[in-house]
Amino acid sequence: MNSTEQSLLHANSEKSAVEKEPEAFRKALAIILKERSFSYPSFDIYKGVTGLLDYGPSGRLVELNVLSLWRKYFVNEEDMLEVGCTALTPEIVFNASGHVKKFTDLMVKDVINGKNHRADHLVKGYCERLKKDVTISAEKAAELDNLLSVVENLSAEELGAKIQEYGITAPDTNNPLSHPPRPFNLMFQTSIGSSGSTNGYLRPETAQGIFVNFNEYYKDSGEKLPFAVAQVGRVFRNEISPRQGPIRAREFLLAEIEHFVDPENKSHPKFPDVESLEFLMFPREEQEKSGQSAKKLCLGEAVAKGTVNSETLGYFIGRVYLFLVCLGIDKERLRFRQHKANEMAHYAADCWDAEIECSYGWIECVGIADRSAYDLLAHSRISKVALKAEAKLAEPIQVEELVITPVMREMGLAFKGDQKNVVEALQALNEEEAMKMKGTLESKGEVEFEVCTLGKKVTINKDMVSILKKRTLVSTRVFTPSVVEPSFGIGRIMYCMYEHCISTRPSKAGDQQLNVFRFPPLVAPIKCTVFPLVQNQQFEEATKLISKQLKSDGIKHKIDVSGKSIGKKYARADELGVPFAITVDSETSVTIRERDSRDQVRVSLKEAASVVTSMAEGKKTWQDVCARLNG
Amino acid sequence: MNSTEQSLLHANSEKSAVEKEPEAFRKALAIILKERSFSYPSFDIYKGVTGLLDYGPSGRLVELNVLSLWRKYFVNEEDMLEVGCTALTPEIVFNASGHVKKFTDLMVKDVINGKNHRADHLVKGYCERLKKDVTISAEKAAELDNLLSVVENLSAEELGAKIQEYGITAPDTNNPLSHPPRPFNLMFQTSIGSSGSTNGYLRPETAQGIFVNFNEYYKDSGEKLPFAVAQVGRVFRNEISPRQGPIRAREFLLAEIEHFVDPENKSHPKFPDVESLEFLMFPREEQEKSGQSAKKLCLGEAVAKGTVNSETLGYFIGRVYLFLVCLGIDKERLRFRQHKANEMAHYAADCWDAEIECSYGWIECVGIADRSAYDLLAHSRISKVALKAEAKLAEPIQVEELVITPVMREMGLAFKGDQKNVVEALQALNEEEAMKMKGTLESKGEVEFEVCTLGKKVTINKDMVSILKKRTLVSTRVFTPSVVEPSFGIGRIMYCMYEHCISTRPSKAGDQQLNVFRFPPLVAPIKCTVFPLVQNQQFEEATKLISKQLKSDGIKHKIDVSGKSIGKKYARADELGVPFAITVDSETSVTIRERDSRDQVRVSLKEAASVVTSMAEGKKTWQDVCARLNG
Repeated sequence: MNSTEQSLLHANSEKSAVEKEPEAFRKALAIILKERSFSYPSFDIYKGVTGLLDYGPSGRLVELNVLSLWRKYFVNEEDMLEVGCTALTPEIVFNASGHVKKFTDLMVKDVINGKNHRADHLVKGYCERLKKDVTISAEKAAELDNLLSVVENLSAEELGAKIQEYGITAPDTNNPLSHPPRPFNLMFQTSIGSSGSTNGYLRPETAQGIFVNFNEYYKDSGEKLPFAVAQVGRVFRNEISPRQGPIRAREFLLAEIEHFVDPENKSHPKFPDVESLEFLMFPREEQEKSGQSAKKLCLGEAVAKGTVNSETLGYFIGRVYLFLVCLGIDKERLRFRQHKANEMAHYAADCWDAEIECSYGWIECVGIADRSAYDLLAHSRISKVALKAEAKLAEPIQVEELVITPVMREMGLAFKGDQKNVVEALQALNEEEAMKMKGTLESKGEVEFEVCTLGKKVTINKDMVSILKKRTLVSTRVFTPSVVEPSFGIGRIMYCMYEHCISTRPSKAGDQQLNVFRFPPLVAPIKCTVFPLVQNQQFEEATKLISKQLKSDGIKHKIDVSGKSIGKKYARADELGVPFAITVDSETSVTIRERDSRDQVRVSLKEAASVVTSMAEGKKTWQDVCARLNG
Repeated sequence: MNSTEQSLLHANSEKSAVEKEPEAFRKALAIILKERSFSYPSFDIYKGVTGLLDYGPSGRLVELNVLSLWRKYFVNEEDMLEVGCTALTPEIVFNASGHVKKFTDLMVKDVINGKNHRADHLVKGYCERLKKDVTISAEKAAELDNLLSVVENLSAEELGAKIQEYGITAPDTNNPLSHPPRPFNLMFQTSIGSSGSTNGYLRPETAQGIFVNFNEYYKDSGEKLPFAVAQVGRVFRNEISPRQGPIRAREFLLAEIEHFVDPENKSHPKFPDVESLEFLMFPREEQEKSGQSAKKLCLGEAVAKGTVNSETLGYFIGRVYLFLVCLGIDKERLRFRQHKANEMAHYAADCWDAEIECSYGWIECVGIADRSAYDLLAHSRISKVALKAEAKLAEPIQVEELVITPVMREMGLAFKGDQKNVVEALQALNEEEAMKMKGTLESKGEVEFEVCTLGKKVTINKDMVSILKKRTLVSTRVFTPSVVEPSFGIGRIMYCMYEHCISTRPSKAGDQQLNVFRFPPLVAPIKCTVFPLVQNQQFEEATKLISKQLKSDGIKHKIDVSGKSIGKKYARADELGVPFAITVDSETSVTIRERDSRDQVRVSLKEAASVVTSMAEGKKTWQDVCARLNG
């Protein structure tokens, strides 16, 4: 890394500098992420494909740590059911869910080189560039702001009109663009089986696998609401022209929770645990006023005022906040933004995004949506399988039930081989039709009746069927549950965490800037390095002993026996975000150094591994350890 | 579950009975796996697609436990680099690896209903059915055995000939089959990007993602061999007609290790740790004799005799054995079978499969292959990126190096704009071509030279180029590493484990047979159930305390406050394979019961959770606990 890149990273401590040169900052960070094996473009020896990203050993360890914390914060804390569904999905599922029709982006083509572009991104880019022009009028600026706030939700015609009005051309080439924008489905399509007859897609979210199995999970939960099902898995979205490498990937890991709840009772027993939290929130109404930004609100008040539509939604917003902060996300660059009415997905009733600010702007990293009963109803309708829950009523209620009883002997005599079709058609009558038939039978004694499955009309007389309404007492209510869905883009969260945790500081000699990843110990890929101060047999044995203990505790560590100076060793470990370093400098005791404070404590050789383990597992802090050993 | 199904499960303790009625046994097991939420067909409300399987909450916990043990046994034990590559892969990668051409199965079509079948499976099924006919001659039986041993490796013509010779027709319909069999590529194809111009596939193995990134991982390993890269991820294979539900899935989890090693030194420092192991092995030569089966061999001897081709391959065979047995696989139904020469994948130099016997027969669950340098060479050739390692030589050696030096001034004068192409063509000469040109230049002063990139011949004279062989002293050897690959089919291992762990035993009253999953504690989805003996406030508080401690230790448990009898509660827990049950029957102490022995010990309330945790994490055994508390 050269000194320009170095200084750009250094600038990260001053947010304004990153904002000034976001591209240079990103480029410098990308170099570290590759050099230290966090992540890099896939299939690079073949020049790769945009939108695909591999995790190297450091990145994979961070991912496993993030998932482990996620399980602790959500799955274990709430006794959720974690499941595993397939990514390959037959078409009928996404027909039912609406994805085949609606999971699209609008695209325009560079008419000369044939390259496709996302229409909304072009308009957005145009507005953002123009806004930087200080000579534009206040009126024009307000127009641009207004357009920016709705650009993702414009129709093909509206977007096409804007592209023509502003004379927007293709990026890089300035070529004219096709008109009007066309929808492009973002799901990857494939064919399942050897006959080519079963169309399939790769899931763009894990949720549908959960919805179709609702009855299984309802059984697993003892047929009681609320309960939650969690799933971690790769999902696939065929982005039109992914430019924001780590942010807009074509294959990425989602961690999703489907919390099923009675639509008449969205309270949450643990809401009091989070109601006093305060953090940046950006409600819908605030966004509609111009010049507003997110403000610190108290979560309990936001729910009480109805800004957040239920305790359950509020509870998850609070838990997501705690989780992200625990990962090392900067509170000041984290906000919860409510979707505007025209912005919500085709299935959502209310939605709040946890957005994290990074060099790409405010990025949606977690979506917390109330999907209402949309998906269960859709699958139930197409599959003809009931996906419902039952709740005991406070006291039984009277209901009227329609009972249609064909008299089989009469029907058999009259219709012979057609009897079955006639019976089924009668039983399929809805209440209105049935009561009309009852009236006609009572007044005229018979009625003409169209049997679709026979393709003809038959005559029904009053001896052939009894139609009546029965009053019964029921003690349960049967309903389709609502679902509240927190959905975590693990890769985006990780990338934002890298941006928030990277920093630089001068070397001891002051002659250069050194990179430091200030990961919380729980997240750091490697928890500890072990250096023998000199290479002799005693120190080597002590090093082995510590390493063996750390391994048996499952603590990832590295031993550095290179001939480098201790300063260089620290610098290399700091750049990887290793929080603790053990220097073996005696046969009986060692020095432990903490990355951020660069403070040191001495502990006995015997204790060294367990002290580091307790901090790496989050059971003790560095302050706890210092207080005990120095105090 | 009805009593017939029950008795079939019961029969599992007697292997011969399972062999007699494997289908009925499987059906009974499938019912338990669904009822207790281990696994079931995906998208069942839509009647699903064969070959896709979902894991319910119990199955997903087992999977996480198996992976955690796998990481402990392999990744952590050997300090492997775990990485994460994408499943979506551009075509060029699988062109290079040979999968586009060779990852195929031969298929024949039912000419009436159009359904496809795997040709080798039809011939195999025919032979197996015929073998059961006691009236066939010894000669015929030997012919069938012989055919069975090679059927998976016959060419399209050979298989087609057998189908015609035996008059094999389509299963179920008896319709005639298409001829000859046609190859069908098992990779799922899709298109990456919106233009439709980039062909892509879903990976059928995770390995290629690792091979193309070899240089990154070599750097991560300090440029030293051997080192190993591990990857856990979903892979996709479009099976022609998957019938063996849990065994032949179209999407499944692979856990793969690529251990890169110097081809001139395949010794392994930890081989002594496993060399005294003895288990069932089935070498190639034994399989070629008729009537042989796997025999118990000592691993050290098998390597010493060259039956297993290297210590490294032997080391992984030994580790795989220990891992599988630790999961609860029955040693007597586990064998390591060497691939016959004609059976190996297109890339393999030697290969041993860990095969587990279940109701489907002997099933390949782990493949341990020496892929030699095949993949790295293939990717290097197509991508033009060197994928090599270096080793220091014991002492420097003299090597002859070919040096071709074009004389730029002469070349420029002679060829002008074509100069670059001529120079590149000269530098691409191999040694033989170059020495021949040198000879001609020396004897005749000039030579005709075909420049492909220009599509014409040019005349080179002796002033234009110098060709010589230089002797240099080198102290390193540059080579393409070999790779030893243990590849674990996690889903198959789990299914075989279910078959080996299920059993039944009479209830206490002796009036019914109860199912018990005898999972080792480390694998069991739920480690412990907690029952308050009666429902009162003291017992409820004690239950909460234990539950809180177990949760903070990360131990999966269930609280059962149903009004059922303690016997019924035990039975329900046993069927899920829960190894320990805590009954809260006093305010100060509790009873812990172990699933298999049904023995009980009393421990203090305070200690209860930590005693169960130590057993659930494999740090203590039930015997340890009993000895301490009863002794």
